[in-house]
Amino acid sequence: MLTLCYCPSSCSMAPHLVLEEGGEKYVAREIDCANGEQRSAEYLRINPHARVPALGLDNGDYISENIAILPFLGKRFGLWSDDPVIEAKMMSFIGWVASTVHPAQAHFRRAERYATDPAAHANIRAVGITAFHGYLREIDGLFAGKTYLFDRLSSADFYAFVLYTWGLQRGFPMRELKNFTAFNDHMRERPSVQRVFADEKIEV
Amino acid sequence: MLTLCYCPSSCSMAPHLVLEEGGEKYVAREIDCANGEQRSAEYLRINPHARVPALGLDNGDYISENIAILPFLGKRFGLWSDDPVIEAKMMSFIGWVASTVHPAQAHFRRAERYATDPAAHANIRAVGITAFHGYLREIDGLFAGKTYLFDRLSSADFYAFVLYTWGLQRGFPMRELKNFTAFNDHMRERPSVQRVFADEKIEV
Repeated sequence: MLTLCYCPSSCSMAPHLVLEEGGEKYVAREIDCANGEQRSAEYLRINPHARVPALGLDNGDYISENIAILPFLGKRFGLWSDDPVIEAKMMSFIGWVASTVHPAQAHFRRAERYATDPAAHANIRAVGITAFHGYLREIDGLFAGKTYLFDRLSSADFYAFVLYTWGLQRGFPMRELKNFTAFNDHMRERPSVQRVFADEKIEV
Repeated sequence: MLTLCYCPSSCSMAPHLVLEEGGEKYVAREIDCANGEQRSAEYLRINPHARVPALGLDNGDYISENIAILPFLGKRFGLWSDDPVIEAKMMSFIGWVASTVHPAQAHFRRAERYATDPAAHANIRAVGITAFHGYLREIDGLFAGKTYLFDRLSSADFYAFVLYTWGLQRGFPMRELKNFTAFNDHMRERPSVQRVFADEKIEV
């Protein structure tokens, strides 16, 4: 059985949603990130990088990074493409989110990762907020005229959906983003989304 | 025929090496990043994010992000795994490099991306250098007792190899990293590496 190590409201919500959508029985293990459990000796054996998500596999191995977990689960649950070009485009989107969009949020949420000098933090945060908001607008453009990012519902959509939730949680004017909002509203009707929102106590 | 848009010495060297190793005829198109060609209207149609690498496909489409390009080329050239767990581990490594290791270098090479206030740049650079050096040491550990990162030569190895080259170019004491150095020295014997070093004028 698969095991997901997650922290509520973090980027681990994307594989949590995909697992719930997939319908297979799995274990959802909440890591107490607020109190540093991700840096415990036991968790560092699961992921030496002290981050969620980590996915425990049937053979006892763990894999980390959404870039690995979202395609893995997508293939397992029919939320992926067999076409190598569409697959590459899905990976390109997931990779851009993981390497560019998510780090922009980290700059305003965890500026101390990037500068030891507290005097630098306010400016790093401001630049991160501007960048993150720009990326949300860009994703809005990707949804123009589309129900999903690609030709079918895929694990990439669940990753995009988490970013919308973050935008709401951070107080960005998300309703201005018409296409992304239509996608969000539609996704929220899915029972899988409602179950994960209840489990992770998401209240936006 | 595939086309690679690249800038010498950048992370586009990884797919450049994989293409050369693959042996198929391809077009290597140098983008004049020093003079901003990546922000030209023509290049923004190829990759709206104004970054290399971008890979032009047989059908005329382009894909961007090493996270997408390295698996795509790896599968095409037998530098990948058919095993879903090993594939996920390859993706996890590539994803960690793209989302964590490469951005650490960007913090010391392009601090202006992360703070508009020049007073913040020196500290951001120092934190980036320390982080990047720590990641190189971590990769050294991954190569302990191994010829390649996984059970066979894969496109992930070429990505790791680029990081060693960057370490040399930035003056890090790379020879201290015994396992990573043994891998580097062995990779440099490959004709594909020698051809790319000549094409990109790499002199370390």
